[in-house]
Amino acid sequence: MQLYSSFTEDSLDKYCAQLINRRPLVHCMTNDVVQEITANVLLACGASPAMVIAEEESAQFSSIADALLINVGTLTSERYIAMKQACEVAHTCQKPWVLDPVAIGPMTWRNNCIIELMKYSPSVIRGNASEIICLAGSGSGGHGVDSINGSDEAINAAQMLASHTGAIVAVTGEADFITDGHRTVTINGGHIMATRVVGTGCSLGALVAAFITLDNNTLDACAAAHALFKRSEEFAVAHAQGPGSFHSVFLDALYQISHRKQNDQ
Amino acid sequence: MQLYSSFTEDSLDKYCAQLINRRPLVHCMTNDVVQEITANVLLACGASPAMVIAEEESAQFSSIADALLINVGTLTSERYIAMKQACEVAHTCQKPWVLDPVAIGPMTWRNNCIIELMKYSPSVIRGNASEIICLAGSGSGGHGVDSINGSDEAINAAQMLASHTGAIVAVTGEADFITDGHRTVTINGGHIMATRVVGTGCSLGALVAAFITLDNNTLDACAAAHALFKRSEEFAVAHAQGPGSFHSVFLDALYQISHRKQNDQ
Amino acid sequence: MQLYSSFTEDSLDKYCAQLINRRPLVHCMTNDVVQEITANVLLACGASPAMVIAEEESAQFSSIADALLINVGTLTSERYIAMKQACEVAHTCQKPWVLDPVAIGPMTWRNNCIIELMKYSPSVIRGNASEIICLAGSGSGGHGVDSINGSDEAINAAQMLASHTGAIVAVTGEADFITDGHRTVTINGGHIMATRVVGTGCSLGALVAAFITLDNNTLDACAAAHALFKRSEEFAVAHAQGPGSFHSVFLDALYQISHRKQNDQ
Repeated sequence: MQLYSSFTEDSLDKYCAQLINRRPLVHCMTNDVVQEITANVLLACGASPAMVIAEEESAQFSSIADALLINVGTLTSERYIAMKQACEVAHTCQKPWVLDPVAIGPMTWRNNCIIELMKYSPSVIRGNASEIICLAGSGSGGHGVDSINGSDEAINAAQMLASHTGAIVAVTGEADFITDGHRTVTINGGHIMATRVVGTGCSLGALVAAFITLDNNTLDACAAAHALFKRSEEFAVAHAQGPGSFHSVFLDALYQISHRKQNDQ
Repeated sequence: MQLYSSFTEDSLDKYCAQLINRRPLVHCMTNDVVQEITANVLLACGASPAMVIAEEESAQFSSIADALLINVGTLTSERYIAMKQACEVAHTCQKPWVLDPVAIGPMTWRNNCIIELMKYSPSVIRGNASEIICLAGSGSGGHGVDSINGSDEAINAAQMLASHTGAIVAVTGEADFITDGHRTVTINGGHIMATRVVGTGCSLGALVAAFITLDNNTLDACAAAHALFKRSEEFAVAHAQGPGSFHSVFLDALYQISHRKQNDQ
Repeated sequence: MQLYSSFTEDSLDKYCAQLINRRPLVHCMTNDVVQEITANVLLACGASPAMVIAEEESAQFSSIADALLINVGTLTSERYIAMKQACEVAHTCQKPWVLDPVAIGPMTWRNNCIIELMKYSPSVIRGNASEIICLAGSGSGGHGVDSINGSDEAINAAQMLASHTGAIVAVTGEADFITDGHRTVTINGGHIMATRVVGTGCSLGALVAAFITLDNNTLDACAAAHALFKRSEEFAVAHAQGPGSFHSVFLDALYQISHRKQNDQ
């Protein structure tokens, strides 16, 4: 039997305050399209991003950073080698790391790379519904980088994938689901306008990497990052005229919501 | 004798509605500087961007995507090999593809690469006036990535290039000219503030790739993408205080103008 | 004895007017994260950015451009080879160039690359306090790409580094210090919100490269670029609700402040 639970505002504020206090250093090995928004999302919330991508130094930096994000969006063979080395160090040093298997499915080489990276036991696997269903072995992927499934269609796949791998699995969509295979947290809300801004999903992966440095409860820390995104999307859409202003206001909202208890003090 | 014609708002709305309906998957192999704005422009208008750049998978993805954009802005030898493979597949599978010969002229290696890519018969060649004049064989290029010629100076070169290659040739500038060598469509308007925001030209190439998937009238589909940009620039400049806010409002305008007939329904 | 001096608004306006008039072409070899903001900062102020990164053409373009920026943020071995070739040409042709030694300290390979690049005599070395202290030989670097020192702690290191290398050394932080080892210009003001937007430091390096093409007084030209940033940060924070809107308004402010005397004419 699966347990479902939701996420409280108090818990979100607690995680946000911890993040600002600790300022975790997040080693981001991500795709070329979302580098800027990924860094800006982390900075808005009080984390410290650093993109180190060469095979000459990715392993060394992985041992220094507090967490690692691997996002295979614009994978190349050079980046893949560097990612593997960083993952190996993260695994050995027991640093938390997040895998985002972007566009898994239709492309053979990418699929093989992702399967290899999975061997280093990611702490969290996050993706859209089509990606999670495909990675769990029951689908052939999405439409390029977009999902062709609703997030609720991926709940069983996510729970199975979590049970098999030991990772927390997070699915984003109309509702987000975060699961360890036994307990599943649902985060409702957000707004579809976020899908019109590139990198909102990818940068969430980076924020998850930052949050899971905060305690050993990876499931709830991961859920907190998702909740912060959903709340910020709602704020943003209320103040935006389209995806351009949504992008700006969304970053403002991440900053304001994550710092709201700071300002009370 | 050359025919000139303009472009109607009704035709623009028809193309926009089709784009939203079909959501074409655009394979973008573009430069490092404009990855984010390129994706955001496509998303704002309802297309689906995907950046796949490795030689291990560019050909495979080219066969899946609906259209391909090749922009040589920050070309490297690795990207060039991957681009050639993608172009070959696009050519063989008769997928439409757009070539943006960024900064052709002063750099020898880049020129040779562009000439090689031309062999795969691009559906559309788009660039600024200096680039089009240079590619047509009568100029030595611009000032870095910027034009040193007015777009009207490039009309003859564009028409000649179109006749020789069979491609639609599009020149951007104070007025845009799109030609098949016989018929030339003029798109007036827009605003010079767009030249203060990086990637407005490059992302137009991606939008052209999306639009030319919609019917076999490549000339008019290409003109529709240009018209959507000009109209959005005019909207943006009326609501902007400089290039930073112009960028945001421009994306909002692309979204609003392309979806205006949707909202009427 | 060290001399300290401040910077006048009149001098800033003079440099800005020259920049708009001359439109220098800045060859940017910078990290993947900040490509867009770097180009947009240069465009906002009237300079012309071009990112040319392949070893096949970086040297050729370096001989064409008016100035070169080398920022080692997401260094790879391929980019390093291309950078060295560009630096060699810049040095030989006496083109001004700026070195930004991002994240120098904890990573061995990066440190060695930076030391090699230093041999081509950069005109300006700019960084945060921890980077400048480390490069001067008295510290082990920062927290990823962020400083762990106040900028005032780096004044002595900056002056020593300038004296030893012959470069102008610029430190950014709560106050900015620009020095030739003898005379040190202090630029006060700005706002800490700028540290929540990725690339504000990196893009300043590009603007410095543009400004030092304007006259042989590299120290004052460099200080002018820093002053323009500080003034724009102050303007931006007064009109922003967080780091997202700060980014937009900051670019607007760069445009408005750099063009204010143009508009008077």
